[in-house]
Amino acid sequence: MRLSEADIQAELDRRRPGQSRMTSTRKETDTCKIYSGVSEGLSRLTTGTPIMISVPNTDQKAHDYNELSLAYRPSHADATYDMKYGGGGRSSARETIGRVASGAIAKKLLKEFWRTEVLAYVSQAHEVVLPEHLVDQESVTLEQIESNIVRCPDADYADKMIAAIDAARVTGDSVGGVVSCLVRNASRGLGSPVFDKLAALFAGALLSIPATMGFEFGSGFAGTRLTGSQHNDEFYLDRGRIRTRTNRSGGIQGGISNGEIINMRVAFKPTPTIGKKQHTVTRDKRETELTTHIRFDPCVAPRAVPIVEAMVALVFVDQLMSQYAQCYLLPINPQLQDPIQPPQTWKNGKVTQLS
Amino acid sequence: MRLSEADIQAELDRRRPGQSRMTSTRKETDTCKIYSGVSEGLSRLTTGTPIMISVPNTDQKAHDYNELSLAYRPSHADATYDMKYGGGGRSSARETIGRVASGAIAKKLLKEFWRTEVLAYVSQAHEVVLPEHLVDQESVTLEQIESNIVRCPDADYADKMIAAIDAARVTGDSVGGVVSCLVRNASRGLGSPVFDKLAALFAGALLSIPATMGFEFGSGFAGTRLTGSQHNDEFYLDRGRIRTRTNRSGGIQGGISNGEIINMRVAFKPTPTIGKKQHTVTRDKRETELTTHIRFDPCVAPRAVPIVEAMVALVFVDQLMSQYAQCYLLPINPQLQDPIQPPQTWKNGKVTQLS
Amino acid sequence: MRLSEADIQAELDRRRPGQSRMTSTRKETDTCKIYSGVSEGLSRLTTGTPIMISVPNTDQKAHDYNELSLAYRPSHADATYDMKYGGGGRSSARETIGRVASGAIAKKLLKEFWRTEVLAYVSQAHEVVLPEHLVDQESVTLEQIESNIVRCPDADYADKMIAAIDAARVTGDSVGGVVSCLVRNASRGLGSPVFDKLAALFAGALLSIPATMGFEFGSGFAGTRLTGSQHNDEFYLDRGRIRTRTNRSGGIQGGISNGEIINMRVAFKPTPTIGKKQHTVTRDKRETELTTHIRFDPCVAPRAVPIVEAMVALVFVDQLMSQYAQCYLLPINPQLQDPIQPPQTWKNGKVTQLS
Amino acid sequence: MRLSEADIQAELDRRRPGQSRMTSTRKETDTCKIYSGVSEGLSRLTTGTPIMISVPNTDQKAHDYNELSLAYRPSHADATYDMKYGGGGRSSARETIGRVASGAIAKKLLKEFWRTEVLAYVSQAHEVVLPEHLVDQESVTLEQIESNIVRCPDADYADKMIAAIDAARVTGDSVGGVVSCLVRNASRGLGSPVFDKLAALFAGALLSIPATMGFEFGSGFAGTRLTGSQHNDEFYLDRGRIRTRTNRSGGIQGGISNGEIINMRVAFKPTPTIGKKQHTVTRDKRETELTTHIRFDPCVAPRAVPIVEAMVALVFVDQLMSQYAQCYLLPINPQLQDPIQPPQTWKNGKVTQLS
Repeated sequence: MRLSEADIQAELDRRRPGQSRMTSTRKETDTCKIYSGVSEGLSRLTTGTPIMISVPNTDQKAHDYNELSLAYRPSHADATYDMKYGGGGRSSARETIGRVASGAIAKKLLKEFWRTEVLAYVSQAHEVVLPEHLVDQESVTLEQIESNIVRCPDADYADKMIAAIDAARVTGDSVGGVVSCLVRNASRGLGSPVFDKLAALFAGALLSIPATMGFEFGSGFAGTRLTGSQHNDEFYLDRGRIRTRTNRSGGIQGGISNGEIINMRVAFKPTPTIGKKQHTVTRDKRETELTTHIRFDPCVAPRAVPIVEAMVALVFVDQLMSQYAQCYLLPINPQLQDPIQPPQTWKNGKVTQLS
Repeated sequence: MRLSEADIQAELDRRRPGQSRMTSTRKETDTCKIYSGVSEGLSRLTTGTPIMISVPNTDQKAHDYNELSLAYRPSHADATYDMKYGGGGRSSARETIGRVASGAIAKKLLKEFWRTEVLAYVSQAHEVVLPEHLVDQESVTLEQIESNIVRCPDADYADKMIAAIDAARVTGDSVGGVVSCLVRNASRGLGSPVFDKLAALFAGALLSIPATMGFEFGSGFAGTRLTGSQHNDEFYLDRGRIRTRTNRSGGIQGGISNGEIINMRVAFKPTPTIGKKQHTVTRDKRETELTTHIRFDPCVAPRAVPIVEAMVALVFVDQLMSQYAQCYLLPINPQLQDPIQPPQTWKNGKVTQLS
Repeated sequence: MRLSEADIQAELDRRRPGQSRMTSTRKETDTCKIYSGVSEGLSRLTTGTPIMISVPNTDQKAHDYNELSLAYRPSHADATYDMKYGGGGRSSARETIGRVASGAIAKKLLKEFWRTEVLAYVSQAHEVVLPEHLVDQESVTLEQIESNIVRCPDADYADKMIAAIDAARVTGDSVGGVVSCLVRNASRGLGSPVFDKLAALFAGALLSIPATMGFEFGSGFAGTRLTGSQHNDEFYLDRGRIRTRTNRSGGIQGGISNGEIINMRVAFKPTPTIGKKQHTVTRDKRETELTTHIRFDPCVAPRAVPIVEAMVALVFVDQLMSQYAQCYLLPINPQLQDPIQPPQTWKNGKVTQLS
Repeated sequence: MRLSEADIQAELDRRRPGQSRMTSTRKETDTCKIYSGVSEGLSRLTTGTPIMISVPNTDQKAHDYNELSLAYRPSHADATYDMKYGGGGRSSARETIGRVASGAIAKKLLKEFWRTEVLAYVSQAHEVVLPEHLVDQESVTLEQIESNIVRCPDADYADKMIAAIDAARVTGDSVGGVVSCLVRNASRGLGSPVFDKLAALFAGALLSIPATMGFEFGSGFAGTRLTGSQHNDEFYLDRGRIRTRTNRSGGIQGGISNGEIINMRVAFKPTPTIGKKQHTVTRDKRETELTTHIRFDPCVAPRAVPIVEAMVALVFVDQLMSQYAQCYLLPINPQLQDPIQPPQTWKNGKVTQLS
């Protein structure tokens, strides 16, 4: 596959701080450089070697976090990291850069090889909830989502969300939110029984993102209030293909994708770093009050959008690989394979046929 | 550790069908037998060998599922399994027996070695939602939970839930529900940054249970509607120990347990197998109508209670093991260790000191 | 794939004790039964579900090992298991039944789908070393190997090996040996750089077999005495295909299979259980003398032949799966895939075309 | 643990090319820099965060390998890598820098916490074999090994080996060799039954090093020529501790370390890159002759010494971690653990007590 820094940078730019007033005003350019795994000539093809990408820090945080070495920030990872490791240095959300960078590669692979799209957007900020019927899952576009700073595909609700976030921001407070994610043209058959059910893998991957508090797919928690006859997705024939009339299963039945659009939602708590005075305790066990002056995101959901997409894409590619390994292990005469004659479809690093 | 069939059978009995009108009326005794890993004498100590437990089927299901070989049951795993493997035989929820059996061992280990308790209950059935303030997370007991057939610790709400489930059951329908789970006296420091955050591991494990549609911990999805200043858990000193005054973090901060009670909730969809007529498609692609006559659980939540506990306990023990491997790697002169002199605390298969 | 107990039993019969005077005279029928993963009708096709095979013990060993509970058998696992787990019960070589049973499935898959053969034989017993030139790696057959009780494909050397083993056996002693293993028509391209080099995976798998002391492939330890110009395998064109004139690389270059015959050798120490009097120490730390009267294999190599084949086949199938996952991830329109129309080649559980 | 670049650099210097005429004359300084995982102050303590170490290339290899893009080097990874990935760029032995750097940390940890030493040396070069009795495994030192450029602890045999290597080198040829490795004061009880036997893990790790062709431990292949009564290691009491009089088991019985010195040997083939003319084939399938002019190691064994030590140390630390996770899971009241009061022994990043 062709791969260049530009492919990755586009996603990193969606994640970096300082892109709008919805995010921390810290200035990080987050410029990436590929060090291995891509050929050096004009073609820029992946070589099968691990791809090493470096994104150096430019904004010095050493100074800003000084006060925190004394007082634990409430609901932040300071205290638990300090207890476990004797120091809080590891809890920076900058680790999500790695997720976005590798997710960019996964998303490109999905799009070019299987025409599969992963697309996330903000569906709730504080108490502003985007009604589901305002988003057409079949047709919503990246452009619509990226058309506003809160990453909500509906312009009216985007304005309401921005207003809600601003209201908290100007008082030094923060709000929570929900990110929804779709996988369109998803391969059927992904996921495996028992422990590798597809939703289980998405849940595990998404709850590893900082500030997440919940995950649901399809009808989710709301679906628990229905009866089976209301909830079941009836099958029908769509030009010879077996499909479901409704999609309360969220594209996953029995842990395996059924070819319908996969949809899921992730809950993000209000950013724990706020500008308001809070009670807390110091490392040396004195009760104290804390007012932080560092820059923070008033709502993490807009910046979390590319991170959610990245984790979903990575899980999806992993499961495609498992699928080929377990279920598409078709007999090939391996002796026919020859170094300088890769399968026709791969010639020039380009897939020539997608039926 | 001492271990006998009785330890495991107690949990299996909570899971098996036919225990009440809340569950399928299929008759399975689900009797377990330990084949390896436990010494044979009176002491019944685990030997360090893998523990093999067998629970044979007694109720013939071959006959009941005959009709299903023709028409896919809506929202069931029939269709996706058939597509992936060419047959639906693997989708039986009987695989959860293995979860419950191994979870019984994990729960016993947690209780005996660390005094850690894992306790789940039904907090919602259909539209009956148990108010949080009616459950004291510090003191709720297994006995309270097991005192009624719906496994809700509040007697009044248990009655309401039973009524709601019965109302669906008599019409051949089913309802969804929510199972809440607590970990009390949870070790601090469990879970690891980036991909092994504790809630991520719980989410992945719990979403692998059949019929699950969502997971949340602490404030969960509701917490997204708060501001940071409303949501943050302030620290204070409790007799010299750093604790939080509230527990919206659900006992997990930055992916690591902080010593407070861990709490989480799992959404279960309405049982897809129902007695009502539904439209569907057959394996050979004909549209048809399906009315199943097999026995089903009108709500899976009550039987899911021990399964949720099992998965949480298994994740918890795994993370304790990781914690010892990574963070308690204290220098020991290994040459002092001698075959016939295990550490004093382990003598007679019994822990003699728990400070 | 079609699979029945007969496929597995054939391999188990090669492993079981009591088959000849080369092996322990214990009587174990080692009869297998498949409990899951294979369809029940006449076709006996694998279903994609985990395959569970049970092989119950019939010979009571509890009695025989009684004395051993007191005195550690020299060079046996008694002492280390007792130190680690507080009991020696787990060290039985009966665990190799599981390797042989699963290896039987892997070998069948390799043969039917890729025409790949895994074949092992005894190439040394005590000081009797089968000269390499007496075995034609291209043409040696299972029948030749199975034609004598020591599993050496050359009749004369088989007789010499049997004589050497008998000489030790009648004095209550045992001898060591070497098992050689070939993979014929091996797929090119298996194995991965850095930690998953193909020989590394074989080495790890084979050294996990009880009584093994060494592993080598291709020129092995003898090759260290050559110069580069003597040792290198020159490339040439064989009807348009790139091959090597010699095969000191043992079919693996840079950790990746090159399509030549893969060959390797595994060293087995003399069986530690012998009938002669030995000095040792008891569990309660008294020095003592031990004379065991239990039945033992005078040389483990002949029975190890199917175990070596099994481990090699299992590694090979794993690597084929990895190869499909990483390198054969060809674009397929996943929506075209349909439940009741598996790829033509799989119809009737039989591969219809192998180009 | 305290950790600085100096700890790692010392090992990298033993591995880098250009250190003597035994190695390639390429000039690589291989200077390391730690980017994460170590605190920044004077103390330089590890923080529990992943440790990232960078060692940039300084010698341009792009030019040197130009010719190779056309003709496959015999017995090199060019051909198989090209076949698998469509390019040979990944086969550089420079990846072993990562092994040595991480192994340096593992060796330091083993030495400081458990007083365990990992020590390797060259025991054979071409046909010069160091007799075993000339090395006292209890007392041989790093200084003795490092006192000559071939890393053989016996001065006379070092001279013979150097002469043998020089003889090949001046004709543009190379030779093979064997590296022996010891683990002294090895913890008892490491390794686990079935697939994680300690020797299996060493074998898998060591055979992943480029140019390796074999592995043996204890009596190895030579032990196959003995009888059980000759080979068994009898137990005796050494001041109340159970030990073995001989050590043909190489410190590992039943896959578990028994507290004796662990010893093993790794075979390295003659360097495939040589200066002599060889027949080969080009990428575009023309037969041709190849004479390489690039700089190469006339024998890889001396430079492989720190790589072997690194892999052994990494496996050993992994197994210590597993041991704590599985067998030292002693009950601790986790609530007593407090962030600012780590166990006494860890204060100041220094272990204060080693009984």
